[in-house]
Amino acid sequence: MSAPANAAASTAAGSEPYQAQAGLADVSVARTKVSDVLGRLGFYHYRGYNAVDIARRGSFEDAWHLMLRGELPTTAQRGAFRQETAALRELPDGVAGLLPAIARLSGPGALESLRTALSLTAQAIGCKPWTDQDQQLTLAQAEHISAVLPTLAAHLYRLATGQEVVQPRADLGYAANYLYMITGAEPDERSVYAVERYLMLTIDHGFNNSTFTARVIASSGADLGAVISGAIAALSGPFHGGAPARVFDMLDAIGTPEAAEPWLRHAIEHGDKLMGFGHRIYKTIDPRSQLLHEVAQELHSDRVGFAEHVEKTAVTLLAELKPGRELYANVEFYAGVVLEAAGLPRELFSATFACSRVVGWMANVLEQIEGNRIFRPLASYIGPEAPREFPAFWQPAQP
Amino acid sequence: MSAPANAAASTAAGSEPYQAQAGLADVSVARTKVSDVLGRLGFYHYRGYNAVDIARRGSFEDAWHLMLRGELPTTAQRGAFRQETAALRELPDGVAGLLPAIARLSGPGALESLRTALSLTAQAIGCKPWTDQDQQLTLAQAEHISAVLPTLAAHLYRLATGQEVVQPRADLGYAANYLYMITGAEPDERSVYAVERYLMLTIDHGFNNSTFTARVIASSGADLGAVISGAIAALSGPFHGGAPARVFDMLDAIGTPEAAEPWLRHAIEHGDKLMGFGHRIYKTIDPRSQLLHEVAQELHSDRVGFAEHVEKTAVTLLAELKPGRELYANVEFYAGVVLEAAGLPRELFSATFACSRVVGWMANVLEQIEGNRIFRPLASYIGPEAPREFPAFWQPAQP
Repeated sequence: MSAPANAAASTAAGSEPYQAQAGLADVSVARTKVSDVLGRLGFYHYRGYNAVDIARRGSFEDAWHLMLRGELPTTAQRGAFRQETAALRELPDGVAGLLPAIARLSGPGALESLRTALSLTAQAIGCKPWTDQDQQLTLAQAEHISAVLPTLAAHLYRLATGQEVVQPRADLGYAANYLYMITGAEPDERSVYAVERYLMLTIDHGFNNSTFTARVIASSGADLGAVISGAIAALSGPFHGGAPARVFDMLDAIGTPEAAEPWLRHAIEHGDKLMGFGHRIYKTIDPRSQLLHEVAQELHSDRVGFAEHVEKTAVTLLAELKPGRELYANVEFYAGVVLEAAGLPRELFSATFACSRVVGWMANVLEQIEGNRIFRPLASYIGPEAPREFPAFWQPAQP
Repeated sequence: MSAPANAAASTAAGSEPYQAQAGLADVSVARTKVSDVLGRLGFYHYRGYNAVDIARRGSFEDAWHLMLRGELPTTAQRGAFRQETAALRELPDGVAGLLPAIARLSGPGALESLRTALSLTAQAIGCKPWTDQDQQLTLAQAEHISAVLPTLAAHLYRLATGQEVVQPRADLGYAANYLYMITGAEPDERSVYAVERYLMLTIDHGFNNSTFTARVIASSGADLGAVISGAIAALSGPFHGGAPARVFDMLDAIGTPEAAEPWLRHAIEHGDKLMGFGHRIYKTIDPRSQLLHEVAQELHSDRVGFAEHVEKTAVTLLAELKPGRELYANVEFYAGVVLEAAGLPRELFSATFACSRVVGWMANVLEQIEGNRIFRPLASYIGPEAPREFPAFWQPAQP
């Protein structure tokens, strides 16, 4: 059969497709009520409420309730929601026995292990395509998966580092229980406060790569286990969730306050990207970084003074060497400092990120399935003109 | 802090974002040399070559070589590629022992189990973010994952149905070995021919939901295990890969040739969607369906005559009751008939689809990482005007 030359994607309707920039930059792919980022204003929100203010004043469960149920909780709702979600932290049957073998295959804190373990756990919970089950059940599974993810992260970490797992405690808040399952000791208030601020600040942030992945998978009708496995998969990419620990590696490489100026100047002049600076959307100080900086100061860690010095030096140098680029510290810069000072090992930074972002993923997925249409874009073919003649060297089995 | 009212997504550059239709319909999200679908012509191709002609004349390994290496193989290349890929069918260490527990959690053929098992297998292979490893290693892992996926699908199926697993045989082709691992018996030539045509026809088909998912995840820098776990997750959605078995359910529901006309008329008149008819892109007979119909006829299965009768009746009724809609049999209509007649149980249809589509996913992913830019679109916020006042009923922990 033959077909005419065609260098552009064809559409069913015959209309010319819109050719998006690479990475869908500047393309709005959905309408949402979940959250928004106003980059030029250094402002972002959860369902209209200033996200930094929620993080400053509330608890993780408050923000979770807002994202999942659509509104901040009353005091009674908060109590009920805490109790309800705390009861969902234990692993379902059929999972615990496999975790040692999963943990053994990748390093401590690896999102690869978390991806496999979450996929398995969703099977054990019995997640089915949302098209095939009652909406209330899908909502319950969304809560269940979010509640159990920190348990998986903590268990896998302890197993990968040769320690006994620590069972979750229902009397602790989300953040405190997470710290407890990792360290095995009741965490102090200051550390819990710090980790909880980090978790609240990172629940959602527009259509980042993993959130978009979650919505694309959900749009096929797939179950929530499929959706979150895919989102964790996306988060594991170094261009996305893999970065927080790298800021730390940079601080280590700089080493001393005196070395900061020459080290950073050399890096910038040689075109190296500074870890923890600049953001595609924010052209001001990242509002998440600001609160994390304050939290870091309250932790009185040795790192903090050093990190502040590096930040100040870098911002001054960037303004001098990259004028007009508006490069400031982003969320990652103080995230690592805060998490480490609160007792979380560096290897766990990305998995900890997954434990907050899962709440944002779920809010987005539940919105997606409400007025769903499957994501199925087009591509523009730019290869050799089709149909090509088969090459003479190809000798297929059938004549 | 305060921010002005804003009902549209903001962009870093300050330009107005393009508001895409739901599901990115009619938006071209990338330029590609992998494949294309020309819906109005009833034509699709792999790297410029008519895909149906390749499926009619070649072997699965020919098509795989074309997609992975960029060109059809010479006879010498075909032999080497067959040998190389056949050697990669055995499970890596650390996987086999966990499969019974994974298989037990979901039903036979469940993509949920395949997703977990593939995620685990990629850990065992040692897949790391492609940003952090040599490109040759990423290519080798792409081949490895594709080669081992049928083994996982077959093992999980046999375990879920209480049978001993059957180890792969390197002396058989991809399709023959797959059938052998499922049935435990050397398959006859006619069945192998049929399954191989199905597999070749379904390797790639534009930016369908799972292929797009694979590219979105890969764009974050994630490893190939992350990418394929996410793609299988997407394929498990009933709006995507979950459909082939449903055609079969419809044929069962119709039951007899005499019942076809009244059953179909009733369904169409009541607005029910007929499984296996109509395609978003093709407004002609689906070219995949045509070859599968021929293959089905050669299998002399009792089902074939019945399916033909249903197809003919449905097309006539659709033209009468939905004039101008151009609804014809799609790929799913004869796929089920062919796979069942070749000895594949119905529960395995979706997993079998994954075993061919994985080759298309890999070709797309390797292209994505060549000139990568992370997928990170925008969304348009349409919720309450931000920032909202906190409600009086919210009594946060911190004042």
